[in-house]
Formats: sequence, C-alpha cells, structure tokens
Amino acid sequence: MAHKTDIEIAREAKKKPIQEIGAKLGIPAEHLLPFGHDKAKVSDAFIKSLSDRPDGKLILVTAINPTPAGEGKTTTTVGLGDGLNAIGKKAAICIREASLGPCFGMKGGAAGGGYAQVVPMEDMNLHFTGDFHAITSAHNLLSAMIDNHIYWGNELGIDQRRVTWRRVMDMNDRALRQIVTSLGGVANGFPAEGGFDITVASEVMAILCLATDLKDLQRRLGDIIVAYRRDRSPVYARDLKADGAMTVLLAQAMQPNLVQTLENNPAFVHGGPFANIAHGCNSVIATRTALKLADYVVTEAGFGADLGAEKFMNIKCRKAGLAPDAVVIVATVRALKMNGGVARADLGAENVAAVRKGCANLGRHIENVKQFGVPAVVAINHFVTDTEAEIEAVKAYVAEQGSEAILCTHWANGSAGIADLARRVVELAESGAAQFAPLYPDDMPLFEKIETIAKRIYRADEVLADKKIRDQLRAWEEAGYGNLPICMAKTQYSFSTDPNLRGAPTGHSVPVREVRLSAGAGFVVVICGEIMTMPGLPRHPAAETIRFNEEGFVEGLF
Amino acid sequence: MAHKTDIEIAREAKKKPIQEIGAKLGIPAEHLLPFGHDKAKVSDAFIKSLSDRPDGKLILVTAINPTPAGEGKTTTTVGLGDGLNAIGKKAAICIREASLGPCFGMKGGAAGGGYAQVVPMEDMNLHFTGDFHAITSAHNLLSAMIDNHIYWGNELGIDQRRVTWRRVMDMNDRALRQIVTSLGGVANGFPAEGGFDITVASEVMAILCLATDLKDLQRRLGDIIVAYRRDRSPVYARDLKADGAMTVLLAQAMQPNLVQTLENNPAFVHGGPFANIAHGCNSVIATRTALKLADYVVTEAGFGADLGAEKFMNIKCRKAGLAPDAVVIVATVRALKMNGGVARADLGAENVAAVRKGCANLGRHIENVKQFGVPAVVAINHFVTDTEAEIEAVKAYVAEQGSEAILCTHWANGSAGIADLARRVVELAESGAAQFAPLYPDDMPLFEKIETIAKRIYRADEVLADKKIRDQLRAWEEAGYGNLPICMAKTQYSFSTDPNLRGAPTGHSVPVREVRLSAGAGFVVVICGEIMTMPGLPRHPAAETIRFNEEGFVEGLF
Repeated sequence: MAHKTDIEIAREAKKKPIQEIGAKLGIPAEHLLPFGHDKAKVSDAFIKSLSDRPDGKLILVTAINPTPAGEGKTTTTVGLGDGLNAIGKKAAICIREASLGPCFGMKGGAAGGGYAQVVPMEDMNLHFTGDFHAITSAHNLLSAMIDNHIYWGNELGIDQRRVTWRRVMDMNDRALRQIVTSLGGVANGFPAEGGFDITVASEVMAILCLATDLKDLQRRLGDIIVAYRRDRSPVYARDLKADGAMTVLLAQAMQPNLVQTLENNPAFVHGGPFANIAHGCNSVIATRTALKLADYVVTEAGFGADLGAEKFMNIKCRKAGLAPDAVVIVATVRALKMNGGVARADLGAENVAAVRKGCANLGRHIENVKQFGVPAVVAINHFVTDTEAEIEAVKAYVAEQGSEAILCTHWANGSAGIADLARRVVELAESGAAQFAPLYPDDMPLFEKIETIAKRIYRADEVLADKKIRDQLRAWEEAGYGNLPICMAKTQYSFSTDPNLRGAPTGHSVPVREVRLSAGAGFVVVICGEIMTMPGLPRHPAAETIRFNEEGFVEGLF
Repeated sequence: MAHKTDIEIAREAKKKPIQEIGAKLGIPAEHLLPFGHDKAKVSDAFIKSLSDRPDGKLILVTAINPTPAGEGKTTTTVGLGDGLNAIGKKAAICIREASLGPCFGMKGGAAGGGYAQVVPMEDMNLHFTGDFHAITSAHNLLSAMIDNHIYWGNELGIDQRRVTWRRVMDMNDRALRQIVTSLGGVANGFPAEGGFDITVASEVMAILCLATDLKDLQRRLGDIIVAYRRDRSPVYARDLKADGAMTVLLAQAMQPNLVQTLENNPAFVHGGPFANIAHGCNSVIATRTALKLADYVVTEAGFGADLGAEKFMNIKCRKAGLAPDAVVIVATVRALKMNGGVARADLGAENVAAVRKGCANLGRHIENVKQFGVPAVVAINHFVTDTEAEIEAVKAYVAEQGSEAILCTHWANGSAGIADLARRVVELAESGAAQFAPLYPDDMPLFEKIETIAKRIYRADEVLADKKIRDQLRAWEEAGYGNLPICMAKTQYSFSTDPNLRGAPTGHSVPVREVRLSAGAGFVVVICGEIMTMPGLPRHPAAETIRFNEEGFVEGLF
C-alpha cells in the first residue's frame, strides 16, 4: 500500500471548530478571536485573568544535530502532545509559526508529519493569522521613521553611515540584500546604503517572542538601537517616538494562536524567530498561557540541542522565569548513521557500526542537557527502513549513558505509537528530578559567557576573537548590557563551527566573526561563520508549481 | 454641548456579532469566515451559489471636486445605506479598505463620520483582514521571481533595463522610491535600478478589485507585463510561472469582507486601488455579491465625479457588466463656497453669492452623470455653519438643472437625517429611468477615448500628446490592447489638470505626460501631471503620537 503524503493526511483531518478545542483548555468562546473556523487568538483579557493559576509541567523537545536525513523534532513534539492526551493527561503543544517567503523557494513545511501534524496546514504556510505581516509592518515603520527623521533635519544627530536598522520582507529576495536607497534627488532624502532581511530575522520578531505583555513589548521596542551618532552614542527607537505605533501595529500579533492536531488536541502556534541570530523558540506569551491552561506543555526549540536547547534554557527560560521539567532528545537511526559517517545515498542499508559511532553525537547532547539540571529521555523517531539491530544499538548506547531511548511510531500511528514515551515523560516530570539552572549567571562578563557555551556545550578548546570584538563586548558591559545572555549564531550541523564535522568533535576552536547587540530583544548575538539573513530563490522555485488544482486544492506548496 | 469625535462615537457602537449581520443578508454562519467577532469574509462557495439570483439596485455615491473643506462622500454612502434600511429596504453598502501606511503619516481615516460610520474603526485602519498584506506578498513574489530568473541565466531574455515591475510596501517611505538593488557581488545578482510604490498603487490591487473569481484573477495576474526584451516584446508574469502562486497568496484576500455600520447594517469593505493610476473603486466581487444579497447596494468611487464616477462607469461597470440605477452627487455648502473662490479661513461666514458661483462645479457633474444615462440626485451634506439662505441657493440651482438637491443630516442624526434622500433614491431607481451606457465604445481608438473623456467630462478643448505617446498607443492597439478602457490619472481638485482651477473651467488643454499599460488589470493609464505612487511621512508623522493609552484604547490613529 502506498503511503499517504502529509498533505493527504492533513486534508483528511476531521477538524473540530476551534471553540471546541479552546473549551478543552477552558477558554470561553468569547475570549477566542476566531480567524476562520479552525484558528483563533486568545484574548489579552483572558490571559491576564490566568495569572494566579499554577503552572503545568514544561517539556522541551530537542534533537541531535540535524542532518539531511531528517530527525522529526516537530513531528515528535506534536506526537508527544497527542500521546500525553491519549494517556489521560491534559496537554497542549507550543510550536513556532512558519515563514511565508521560504515556502515559495523550497517546498513549504508541514507542522509535523504523518499522523502527528498540526492543521490547517495551508493557512500555516501562508498568511496564517497575519502575525508576520504585522511584524514586517512594525519593523518597516521604524525604518521609514529613521530616514524621515534625517530628511526633516536630523535633530537627533543620527550618523547616517551608522544606521544599523535595516528593512525586512517575508520573501526570499536576494536582490534586496544590499541596496542604495533615497536616490532620485532632494525629495527622496539622502542616498544611503541599506538592505532587507527576511522578516523572521527581525529583532521585532525576537522581541515579540520574548515580551511578556504589551507594556513589556513597548518597553523592548523602545530599547531597540537603530543607529549611532558620530560620537558612537546609540539612538533608540524610543528617541524616534516609534515604540507606541509599533506596539499598536503588533498588539493583535502578540495574542497567541490556537489551532489543533490531527487528533483534535490544542496547539499554540506563535512566533518564529531565527534560530541563529535569534533564539529560535515560540513566544513566551504562548508558552506561559499554555502552562496556565494545561497540565503538560510540550514545546520545541530550533536546530539541535547545542543551539536550540542551549538558547531555550539560557535565554527564553532565564528571561521568562520558566523551568523545564524534562527534555526529550529526538534521534533517528538514519540521522545517527549520517553522524557516524554514512553518506545519504547509503542510508537504506543496515549499518549497526555506523549507528553506534553516530551515537557519540546523541551522547553529548544527553550530557549537555543534564548540565542544566533537567532529566532527559531519547525518542527514536521510527523510520520504515530501521532494522531491529540498529534500534537496539541506540537503546543500548543510551542506557550506557544512564538514560533511556524509547522507540516511537507516532508518524505512522499517531498517539498510539508514542504512549511509552508519554508515560516516561510523565514519570520524569512528576519525579521532581529537575533542578533547572541556566549555564552561566547574569553577571558573568560577556566574553566568559561565550567561552562557557563554547567549552561546556560545544566542547571547544578556545574562543578566538580579535581585539575589536573584545573591546566591543567591554564597551557594551560599560554601557550596562553586561548582564544580557548570549545568542550564538553558528552552523546547526555540528557542535563545532565546521558544518562538515559531524559526530562529537573535540579540540576545535570557535572563531567569533562579529558581535551584535539586540538591545530590545535583550541578548548579544555572537556570529561564528556566515549567517544568511535574506535567502534567495533556487533555480526552479516552488512558486513555479504552486497553484490551485481543478479540485480547488493548493498544489506544490508542500 | 461639545460634539463627540468620530472615534468616541465609534467606540460607543453597540456592535452585533458578525453572524447576525450576515443573517440579515441570508448568509449562513458556516459561510462566514470570521476574523474576530466583528469582521468576516464571505465564502467562495456561497458566492458561487448566488449566481442565478436577480440583482438589486445599484446606487453610486460620488461628489463634486474635493476641496480641503471636505465633502463627506463616504459618510453619505454609509448614511444612505442606513437610511434605506430605516425606510424598510434591504440595503448594503460597498466601500474601499483603508491603506495602513498613510495612517502613520497623517491621521488615519474613519470609514464615514459622525453617526454614519462603519466599524470596527481601529481594525479597518490597521491590518483589517490582511488583504493588503496578501497583495504586498503576491506583488513582491513576482518581483523576486523576475530577478531570480535573470540571476539563474535569464532564459526568457529579459532586458534588465526594461523591467517595469517595481516592488510595493504598505508604508510611506520616500527612501524606497528610487533605489539600486543587487549590490554586494555575484551572489546578490545584477545591480539594477528599482523602487517601491505603496501597496494600493500595485497593479495586483487593481486586478483583485476587477477580477470576477479566482480563475479570472489568475488569468489577469498571468497577463501582467513585467518587462520587455531587447526587441521590445513583452514578458508576462505567466512566462515566469508566477500566476499560480500569486493566486494562492491572494485567494483569501479575494473573499469580500463583511462588517457593519453603527446602525448594524451590513457593509462590504473590500479592495482599495488608487483613484489616479487605478480605477479607485471597491472590488467587483464585493459589489456583485452585495447585489445578489440586497435590494439596494450603495457604493462610492474615489475623488470627484470627473475621475471617480467616470472610471466607475467606463471601467468597473463596463468590465463587470454592472449598470447603476441612480447616482447621488454629494456636495457641501462649504466646498461649494471654496469652488466659488472663498478661502478656507473665510468659510465660516455666510456667502450666498460664492455658493451660487461654486454651484457651477456641481452643475457640470450633474450634466456629466446624465451623459451615462443614469438619473442623479444631489445630497447636501449638512454642516453646522450652513445658513438657510446658502442651502436654499443650492437647492434652487440644482432645480434649475432639472434635478433635486436634498438636505441630509446623517452626520448628526444617522439614518433619521437622510430618510428624504433614501426615499428619492428609491423613486429614481424604481422609475426605470436609468439607461446606462459607457461614454465610449470598446473599439474606439485609444487616443480618441482619451479625447472623449477630456472633452465630454473635463470640457477641455484639446488633448496634448507628443509623437512618442501617440506611437505607443498605436503600438498597443496593434498588440491587441486597443479595446481597453482608459484610466485617467490627473489632479482630483479640478476638472482641468491644474489643481488650482476650481469651479467649472473651460478652454483648457489636457497634456498627457506618460501612458502605461496595465495589461492584467485591463486598462491603459494616462498620466497628466505628477502622480506620487510612494508617499513620504510628514515632519511629525502621526506615528509619533499613536499609542495605547492607560485605558487600553488606541490614541493618535484618528
């Protein structure tokens, strides 16, 4: 029998009205702002009314370093949410929103896969509830206000060569990466260099995902550094009086979006910051709201645990006062084989030795997660070509590390295939074993924070940074930004900064190319290697094949 | 007693759930896609199911040439809709959506005013249901696909110097009017000149507003000319295979938005093309849907009747097969005084002579409307400073023209203040007097069409156009575009192309500066004078004062 595709399964979903999904969490219909019949935003007033309630348990789903073989982190997040509900727990999941632009380059992403998906898939790949459009508008309003301020006399003394605030668009458009603006004469302003990033790379996105409420949102927006003066003093968005209007533009986008899984369980899909130059987690407000409404909240972080889980713990949990109760590390036999040196073309053949070798990558992530004081369990996301011996090799290896690996077949079987993991997660979370603490204290000097992550998480020998970068970090410390956490931007494919170095490398160095201050979001971005903030379209973009077919279904988007 | 502001009145509105508003028109709740509790889109399936129903009567509200004194065209449209409902008719109104960008420059617009408004006002000035964001995305996807095609080898042989498709953003940003893109080396493409227009100026906006369904939308999007080759042959969006993906991006935006008036009557607010380089009317699909659901549909067109009504008749009605049954021409005593030569500062003083002089402007619009075979009535939109003698002067003048002017106080009194006009509109519409015909036939040569509008509507002596422009028009005729209607882009402040020439000028010339082919929208744009397609922000943009106040209300937007 031919397998159904993700989209075929999604289209067969028996969706319930979103009010019924909300009712599962006790959200009254009048506090759900509907977007169609299958999406809704939770009202600000209702969220405020929850503040005295106790929090449920927070479960983070993370993964080994990603490979082209695929790990299925979101699929496992969705599956585990369904699994917890299936064993009688009141559970909700919290994941990120998809970016529209990239869907027209490569194929768009499903939220999960197989029988562990969130729906409506089309909407989630397109405009959804308009959050990213609101972020684009707020970001570009600030850009326009900067140039407008200079145009009308530049009272703030902005050095136009030192405007750091670019523009954004939710589109893969390489032609906009580097541009010259304000050509054409006096009426159009002063010619200047500029450029566009993709919307998910906007600091406004990171801010929206870290803000606790509208007041906090406005404060953070005001804190954005948009430019410097000739004397190098910063100019803030607040100086331009842009923070109020940006907040108004973002108010609805701040409200978490509720949708459902294929098994009609609640899923909050909200926010989607880059996982390199930003922290790569769904919004704090969605996670917090879910914790007030559900006994178990399953969430995920971007990329592998070296980037995603590290930032989830050191940035999101630290800043939002969250404490995870258990961590699930997702691995697949195929991805472990690739970490063990097998080429993609050879993944079909059984190779227990390669699996065992690749387990070194998994083992280090287990160790790392435990450094944060949180118990970990491994989910083996089953693939049809996995052999019994390969699966046993993973289980045996993980057992040696003092942890447990559980085979999960949620992709094929939905919640029924992930009940064992769900039960183990409940045990871990209820055990009270978690003693969460971030990896470094707030008051550690910035460079030491970078070294701490590089040495304890990446297992590098050293961090390489020239004087200019160290001076910049010290200058920020003197300006009062020394207490911020670090947001590492490096390749997701390796513990090191070399994307080809799979497994569990040691003896490497972490060269810092550039540091950036995201003063509104509240972190220092440390860039190691090339980071692309505006993707391009491929030779044959997916857009060429996206269309409505004769039955009125969207084709080519998935 | 101090008058309440529009926003105060709007906030006191007793809004009904949008399903109740839909029910008034017989739209089942499952065919309303809600956006919150007070906005909804009407489903495609429901619209299709209406095709066999008879149409209601179509009433166009237009106005004299606009002045800084204000005419209240939208206010009268809304008031008349309420008035018709109040006298027992099943009526709906159809107006345009507001553009987000300009709200952050000058104050945002209300939809109507006083006790004749459409709500929710905040949403309508911000993201509303996301239609304009969808248009921005679809437009810029096409832009990215053009540059991407050139980047990957330029198989279609696009002459990069002749790319006519710019980019758009819904923001007032003068710095983006003229830019150079693709700087920074090989990976970013070939440097080129480019620029951004505001979203409402996008041809995609005009297309969405003229398309009859998704198929027609896709066909029109495919017809867009994006560039020319060295041999001057056109390259279409279809050649880039962009039309399918653009249609998918626009599918939801194509569904008309339903909201309500302060008196809880149905209002379709959908689409908002520029009224100079485009046709300035709400969407065909909204108007057609309303005509199937209501016995009376009141709609409006942009600017004064010389631009708005002319395009409504010659472009929208011609192309959509619509036939207006009556026209309301809105005038105010103040605006007539300004047309009669009174300065804005002196509008407070009674000046019957100036009113009578300014009536020449009104008189010509009455004549013009009758040229289309549609009966006209004048609405005097009452202002508190109007004197009895001034109002009588208008009434007497209009009576001399064989028409009738009716005093309306809907701004102060809602539907109760406009019952007389409503009754007269019903008489005119039911009389069967309307014998609508466009002003020129499809097969008239393009230049003759321009002359027809200039001479019969503007009362100019001649149209001035150099050889290059006449050759271009002939080339388009040879390419099969000769049957398109003309979309005039000239100042809205005068019948002539001189904005300072108020009243009813004669003996003037209409100089054509440029012609553009909107092959997808299906009209030839004729530009007479400077047309700004990307506004800038003023010295102190409204954005500086827009914020949430302590009560949680938006301030500064209105």
